[in-house]
Amino acid sequence: MVKTELICIGTELLAGKTNTNACFIGERLASVGLDLSFITSVGDTLADMRHALETAVSRSRIVIVTGGLGPTFDDLTRDAAAAVTGRPLVIDAAALAGIESYFICRGIPMPPANRSQALLVDGATLLPNPVGMAPGQMIECGAARLFLLPGPPAEMQAMFEASVFPAIRQFETRKKKSFSLHIAGIPESEVDRRIRPIVEGERALEKDSVSFTILAHHIVDIRVSVWDADEMLVDENLRVLKHALSAALGDAIYGEDAETLESVVGALLARRRATLAVAESCTGGLVCQRITAVPGSSLYFTQGVVAYANEAKQSLLGVPLQTIEQFGAVSEETAHAMAAGARARAGTDYALSLTGIAGPTDGTAEKPTGLVYIGLAARKFTKVMRCQFPGNRLDIRERAADAALDMLRRELLAAAPVHTQR
Amino acid sequence: MVKTELICIGTELLAGKTNTNACFIGERLASVGLDLSFITSVGDTLADMRHALETAVSRSRIVIVTGGLGPTFDDLTRDAAAAVTGRPLVIDAAALAGIESYFICRGIPMPPANRSQALLVDGATLLPNPVGMAPGQMIECGAARLFLLPGPPAEMQAMFEASVFPAIRQFETRKKKSFSLHIAGIPESEVDRRIRPIVEGERALEKDSVSFTILAHHIVDIRVSVWDADEMLVDENLRVLKHALSAALGDAIYGEDAETLESVVGALLARRRATLAVAESCTGGLVCQRITAVPGSSLYFTQGVVAYANEAKQSLLGVPLQTIEQFGAVSEETAHAMAAGARARAGTDYALSLTGIAGPTDGTAEKPTGLVYIGLAARKFTKVMRCQFPGNRLDIRERAADAALDMLRRELLAAAPVHTQR
Repeated sequence: MVKTELICIGTELLAGKTNTNACFIGERLASVGLDLSFITSVGDTLADMRHALETAVSRSRIVIVTGGLGPTFDDLTRDAAAAVTGRPLVIDAAALAGIESYFICRGIPMPPANRSQALLVDGATLLPNPVGMAPGQMIECGAARLFLLPGPPAEMQAMFEASVFPAIRQFETRKKKSFSLHIAGIPESEVDRRIRPIVEGERALEKDSVSFTILAHHIVDIRVSVWDADEMLVDENLRVLKHALSAALGDAIYGEDAETLESVVGALLARRRATLAVAESCTGGLVCQRITAVPGSSLYFTQGVVAYANEAKQSLLGVPLQTIEQFGAVSEETAHAMAAGARARAGTDYALSLTGIAGPTDGTAEKPTGLVYIGLAARKFTKVMRCQFPGNRLDIRERAADAALDMLRRELLAAAPVHTQR
Repeated sequence: MVKTELICIGTELLAGKTNTNACFIGERLASVGLDLSFITSVGDTLADMRHALETAVSRSRIVIVTGGLGPTFDDLTRDAAAAVTGRPLVIDAAALAGIESYFICRGIPMPPANRSQALLVDGATLLPNPVGMAPGQMIECGAARLFLLPGPPAEMQAMFEASVFPAIRQFETRKKKSFSLHIAGIPESEVDRRIRPIVEGERALEKDSVSFTILAHHIVDIRVSVWDADEMLVDENLRVLKHALSAALGDAIYGEDAETLESVVGALLARRRATLAVAESCTGGLVCQRITAVPGSSLYFTQGVVAYANEAKQSLLGVPLQTIEQFGAVSEETAHAMAAGARARAGTDYALSLTGIAGPTDGTAEKPTGLVYIGLAARKFTKVMRCQFPGNRLDIRERAADAALDMLRRELLAAAPVHTQR
């Protein structure tokens, strides 16, 4: 296997910040069997950066570096790479033109400091930045190939996919494939109980070519990887395992790989040509925000309201004042009226509503923090689910949004199949 | 400063798993000014572990290692430490007694494999494990002091607090304090231009007791740390630097430390006893969600609407159909009508509106992806700002939300001061 390592530049990484770039690159390379051998985090200190780079190029064939390509005084990756390779930094005309055009497009003069971003190690290949300003570099240094990428995750990821991944994936000849299953509505321990016979059955074969990982955050993910020299064996093994896991977990599996609850719900709505409105109180816009984060969501999502004040629940959703006064803003009755009102006013096929107590204050013995009522209105019925979520304010909001989207997903799956008419 | 570094053992850390041990130790050490210089993640491979350890002991005074102290075949930290120090592994009677008693207490026989956990590098000091079985070790190796800690976070943290932190904290006698400033509305390069004289002034003093870090994501953060043997000097230095940076950046600084744009805007609204409504299109609920993520936001935020469909802009906000048809849903005129309509219908002091093209499709030459109009309505006026944001759909939405919150913040700052009436 080709030795590959990663160096992440940034003092903040040494003082407790999560290294999301390392997670992304590690996972991306592992997905094709090109596992990293080392990840080194180092601060914005030239001597330490030099030492980390020298160590890396002496032991690895591929060295990926993230961060330190900005225009400011503490962006020193270019200088460290020049020192380690023993080559000067030179202004690259194409890089400079790209940076200048970035400012021209925005109609603002280029600050002199940004000129430093056009400096390339002599002989380096420019890596274009599809979404930002700082260009990357590919540098041959002895037996090692060095990739310098910007630190902001969106820019790093775009450049990694466009320029790094294609250049290094040719180094691994063994085939590796993976899939992830995403599960909602049942807890991690129940997932573990259901899939344990499958995992133990594979382990008993002692093939060392299958791995299972369970990751539980608000929902539960299972990741399965299979590798082998023979791609057909990999595909067959994946197919068998996915079938077994699907049988064990049923419709608790809401999606695979890059799918999210909101993308799956969106696809189900689009397939039925159905429309959705949302009425939120405790989640404060989170459900709308997640639904509209999906490209093309305007096809099925028409409108949402964040009815935080009780007056807003009356004026925007037509919840009767009497309902709020008699049962409270956080009640089955109010959730029911919010969902029905949202659907009627928006003229959509479905509407979701959420009202609850996200905390940290306002909880009582009768209505504790974490209590959320979720309403779902359709053409022929309106129903309400009562939930009690653990965690802090942001956890409760996220779990409530998951539960609401999953409630709609199960309803769409249970509804009569669509017969597309053309 | 005493050079300190961390090595984290575990193949899973190389394939995308978040390194929570590095976050914990980095933050804990930074809190007393003992900043890490390097964090290296390495897999359960003896040769790689040896190389990482050799590199570390050659350059650092203190080397902390986590992980690889379990009883299984892939727990190799003890072997790597023995190889690097050139000393044998010997069974430690006290360690073995501790492991045996762990099994006796639980009433199960000790598996033979667990005997390996009692192996210490010859001459090492045993570090007791307050919450688990695997003991740690402290080893003098040339000029370096090596600490081996178990990988499970609860065990690592307990041992770190009991045995490592007290032993290394004495190396740093200076006091350290830090602050962060958060900046919106000006780009990173402009921040750099304005603060560079302050940074260079400090550097010219060559005191090595002040550090500046700039972190740019959608907004820009500056972090300043000062350390000195004399705590009064630290406080005075911090005060002077904060004053200088505040003068250089003015009202572009929206907050310090844990403050966010939404918490600052919320505090300004609450202080004025003013209320806010929000009308979103392209951001799809993100602005509402951020505002309501702040505890207590019901004090000033009453309602929001996500008017995704043009009909919703008419029915929920009263935007005239003619405005949309003549100027388009993404236009200064529509943003103006959305903000004014949201404020009038909600009866609030202020309203924000956002309409734009978040992509990835729908952009045109005249109205490209990233174009967003942000409206702000107050009692006496309504104004609209035109923005062009870079990045993907989620970046554009996040930047638009930042810009809208910052627009309101600046308006609240500029408005006449509040004279609280009681």
